[in-house]
Amino acid sequence: MTPLRVGLAGLGTVGGTVAKLLRDNARLIERRAGRPVALTRVASRTPKPGIDLGQATFDTDLRALGADDVDVVVELIGGETVAKEVVATAIGAGRHVVTANKALLAAHGEEIFLTANRSGVSVGFEASVAGGIPIVNALRTGLAANRIDAIAGIVNGTSNYILTAMEEEGLDFATALADAQRLGYAEADPTFDVEGIDAAQKLAILAALAFDATIDFDGVHVEGISGIDIEDIRYARELGFSIKHLGIARMHADGVEARVHPALVPESVLIGKVSGVMNAVMAHGNAVGPTLYVGPGAGGMPTASAVVADLVELARGTLPVPQPAERRLPSLGVEGVECPHYLKIPAIDQPGVFAEVADVLSRYKVSIEAVIQRPQAIRTGAEPWVPIIILTNEAPEAVARAFVSDLGGLSGVTGEIARIRVADLSA
Amino acid sequence: MTPLRVGLAGLGTVGGTVAKLLRDNARLIERRAGRPVALTRVASRTPKPGIDLGQATFDTDLRALGADDVDVVVELIGGETVAKEVVATAIGAGRHVVTANKALLAAHGEEIFLTANRSGVSVGFEASVAGGIPIVNALRTGLAANRIDAIAGIVNGTSNYILTAMEEEGLDFATALADAQRLGYAEADPTFDVEGIDAAQKLAILAALAFDATIDFDGVHVEGISGIDIEDIRYARELGFSIKHLGIARMHADGVEARVHPALVPESVLIGKVSGVMNAVMAHGNAVGPTLYVGPGAGGMPTASAVVADLVELARGTLPVPQPAERRLPSLGVEGVECPHYLKIPAIDQPGVFAEVADVLSRYKVSIEAVIQRPQAIRTGAEPWVPIIILTNEAPEAVARAFVSDLGGLSGVTGEIARIRVADLSA
Repeated sequence: MTPLRVGLAGLGTVGGTVAKLLRDNARLIERRAGRPVALTRVASRTPKPGIDLGQATFDTDLRALGADDVDVVVELIGGETVAKEVVATAIGAGRHVVTANKALLAAHGEEIFLTANRSGVSVGFEASVAGGIPIVNALRTGLAANRIDAIAGIVNGTSNYILTAMEEEGLDFATALADAQRLGYAEADPTFDVEGIDAAQKLAILAALAFDATIDFDGVHVEGISGIDIEDIRYARELGFSIKHLGIARMHADGVEARVHPALVPESVLIGKVSGVMNAVMAHGNAVGPTLYVGPGAGGMPTASAVVADLVELARGTLPVPQPAERRLPSLGVEGVECPHYLKIPAIDQPGVFAEVADVLSRYKVSIEAVIQRPQAIRTGAEPWVPIIILTNEAPEAVARAFVSDLGGLSGVTGEIARIRVADLSA
Repeated sequence: MTPLRVGLAGLGTVGGTVAKLLRDNARLIERRAGRPVALTRVASRTPKPGIDLGQATFDTDLRALGADDVDVVVELIGGETVAKEVVATAIGAGRHVVTANKALLAAHGEEIFLTANRSGVSVGFEASVAGGIPIVNALRTGLAANRIDAIAGIVNGTSNYILTAMEEEGLDFATALADAQRLGYAEADPTFDVEGIDAAQKLAILAALAFDATIDFDGVHVEGISGIDIEDIRYARELGFSIKHLGIARMHADGVEARVHPALVPESVLIGKVSGVMNAVMAHGNAVGPTLYVGPGAGGMPTASAVVADLVELARGTLPVPQPAERRLPSLGVEGVECPHYLKIPAIDQPGVFAEVADVLSRYKVSIEAVIQRPQAIRTGAEPWVPIIILTNEAPEAVARAFVSDLGGLSGVTGEIARIRVADLSA
């Protein structure tokens, strides 16, 4: 059988692992693909590292991938500029594309899919979200009978590692981050991961696929986890919740709710138990109900597993040519969300303060589900104060912002109020 | 576009729901399939119920599905005899087949796949295991780059419902079973589910697919949950475990370990938290590592979701024609398993008994990881006795059988010893 000829752009951890996987699992890949999947060319701007590329030629010029002996270009360069060029050139030359580049797809996915559609070539992007979890495949095929109503998940392993270390080892954010950096789970500049940008890109890709829609990435509401205090994690646990950094997207009649933020997840919900660098994606279909997919969200081997899965589909002829999205949906961000809220209110330790707090909430018709306030929590400072922890019942986002602002104006409240939303998930 | 014409055999809960789903989600199914998926014929030996079959003709003679306006026969009759005939006839006439019938596949899968291969038709069986979880699709495509080393899971919702009710509500087995029957989660004769036969069939189907092998269903080791005592669940919890009814299959150099039995699952392992009628399947790939898939394991809508997913693949032309398995693997059952064991030993409440028990284990070079023995556990009867609960370290199956036999022979041991294996899972 004619092999599928693969040109690989980029030879970092994932690129090197794709080469290794194609070699090590060649026999079973050929059996599943129905024909061999052969690496014919590798191009990387950095010199060839000491890894076995088999029969493949190596070039430091990415244009080498334009040669006639390449059927598909696997883009593993990362970044947006050069990667976009490589992908556009490949599509222009009638080559299929497989990419792990979530930033590229979140920013330029619509354009890439459109040109691929015009050229009649396929674009595989299983590796761009949730690492080795075959969630793109599940949404595209396994759940094809369903209208997907909601997607929610832990799609950034770095921030989940940090939150897990805070919860399980009692570390503060800075220490947990330093540990993650030492172990290679976080970059030197961790902004992209801990501030939720990476998660928002992945959420946008998943939501577009799940809802068959073009979604404006800039409209995704994004909050990071750098403001989460170890105290919040302890109080949340006491109330029966874990704090997770979630991406949530939901279809509404007037658009797509799409948001990334820390959230309290009830202990009874499986996604709250997903720990360390593992990822998890919940997809709710109108026929199947809730389904959950868990696995390693990053790393060379899991990501290579997803890249090669796309290559197998391509070799079989089952990786689809992208179709224009059925609709363009406005992004509603977090505005329409109605959920319970966790509040940590720093208050002067004097009689009457709690009554004032309760009075504000009562004016907004928000009831209090749970309270934690302890005399022993008094801390040193200019004035003695205690944190009042409140779990409210469901309140719309706008109402929550308003009561937090009003609470901040109380004379007995001594500083910034922390508010964390409670996630309303069922799987 | 030419529609895919569907002939439906059987109009019970799942059949009726497939008809409804094809109608309700017709537009998105057509979009994902690339062409309409149209129900043209329905045949059921019972008279037509009051559900809307749209344009489809109805017949009480299953032979009506042999008409020229059918491209695929969906077999939802259940049982083995008539179902096998319907499937064989369809394949013989060059029709594709989609089935939810795990009993049929476990007993006759090899023959069905072989004849389908000869006729060049596809066989879809996503619905035959783990209900709405797209696990067949994940194994066939999403994890196609991986050698699958192990499969483990909760694949019977009835027994998981019963074990969850015992753990969470403190019910004994009989009461939990009666509840499950009242709620429609268990049959009047629950043997098939609670004794593990249904789970073993599903495990055999998953293992054959995952390991690309023909596996002898009769070689699967099967134990049910009817012997699990509420006390075992309480002690297990005290030791940091849940008791789950698991199917586990692992590749070895000399065959396939395949077994269904109750097992202690550590609290840190996600599969131990899967509760109620939910199913969960863990697949361990040599590239991706552990991945977990969770969702509703039964019910009309989830099963119909899986049936229609196969129809969408068929309409796209991406549902494969079965290939002969690469190899025939002997079933090793449980013989080669080496794992920790939970023991409940009913013992006379006298000095020296524990020393005798410890001495037996010591002779087999088995260490004791944990012990629970309480004076207040004394119970009424001919003689006062206490349960001695022991968690051993890893011991091979043959050794475990031998020490249980020796322990049973001690003069201080007053009755049957319960032994439950500890599962060694990592996701």
